[in-house]
Amino acid sequence: MVKEITIIRYGHREERDKRVTSHCCLVARAFGAKRIIVCGPKDKGLEKSFDKVNLNWGKGTSLGASGNWKAEIRKQKARGAKIVHLTMYGIPLGRQIEKIRKEKKVAVLIGSQKVPREAYGLADYNVSVTMQPHSEVAALAVFLHELMQGKELEAKFRGAKIEVVPQERGKKTKKRF
Amino acid sequence: MVKEITIIRYGHREERDKRVTSHCCLVARAFGAKRIIVCGPKDKGLEKSFDKVNLNWGKGTSLGASGNWKAEIRKQKARGAKIVHLTMYGIPLGRQIEKIRKEKKVAVLIGSQKVPREAYGLADYNVSVTMQPHSEVAALAVFLHELMQGKELEAKFRGAKIEVVPQERGKKTKKRF
Repeated sequence: MVKEITIIRYGHREERDKRVTSHCCLVARAFGAKRIIVCGPKDKGLEKSFDKVNLNWGKGTSLGASGNWKAEIRKQKARGAKIVHLTMYGIPLGRQIEKIRKEKKVAVLIGSQKVPREAYGLADYNVSVTMQPHSEVAALAVFLHELMQGKELEAKFRGAKIEVVPQERGKKTKKRF
Repeated sequence: MVKEITIIRYGHREERDKRVTSHCCLVARAFGAKRIIVCGPKDKGLEKSFDKVNLNWGKGTSLGASGNWKAEIRKQKARGAKIVHLTMYGIPLGRQIEKIRKEKKVAVLIGSQKVPREAYGLADYNVSVTMQPHSEVAALAVFLHELMQGKELEAKFRGAKIEVVPQERGKKTKKRF
């Protein structure tokens, strides 16, 4: 069973990728990853808004930055993590997920700009979430959803100041401030 | 069984939402929706790049625009579609998906800016994909993945000029030009 999930986001162009990288971080957190490493220039705005989510909604994923994606992959490998590269060119998710669920540590590589060819060789698994062009945010979410077998859907976060109380209509929250 | 899926994207601010709306359109297509209606100003750039994807990768989803999200919902209801509003405040996906799978036509409402309170009342189902703040792109993908029961993962698109040939390492495509 997977006990530790790391996300490595390859590339982050501060202006162009701002909202998409932020969505990647939020998905990593909502779907149970331990950490996300954004490879690109340090983005103070991103860190600040993500900290605020962890503060209000409960401590989830930690956010780190790295200037060198390859060093990050090597580091994860040295820690015993298997590298899962999400790419539309890989082997379909349904054929690989059972095997991946048996790994102890998993590091998931997702792109923004085109990921260098090298990544395909460094990965232990190249996994496609559909064989169509779409979104790294979507691919990450569906992959983690399958990895977690849906357990993330009703997960509670420790230390949350705000918590949703599910409603058929409207919005209800519990607040602890 | 659901035979027709429409996506209604509430709000699209041309500069700020450009890439995220584009991801929504691509996810709608990759995960089997018939159409996506973007409610906001017409965005020629978005249409052009989406047309290109349909042209190269096979005809999937059609993209429409609407100036009035509520009129769009009424129109879908009149056509017999049930409205599914994806919101972190709704009832968790796992508790609702079986019932929704039995509907014939489904229109999925996703936000960008905050969706007006009214939407919660207009919806037949308010559904949460985790109870945490994250991404409408991710919520849409996981919802459609569950609705399709994973059938989208290896779906082929008619008339595709380019098709992925899944590989353990590297990229391979079949091209018909």
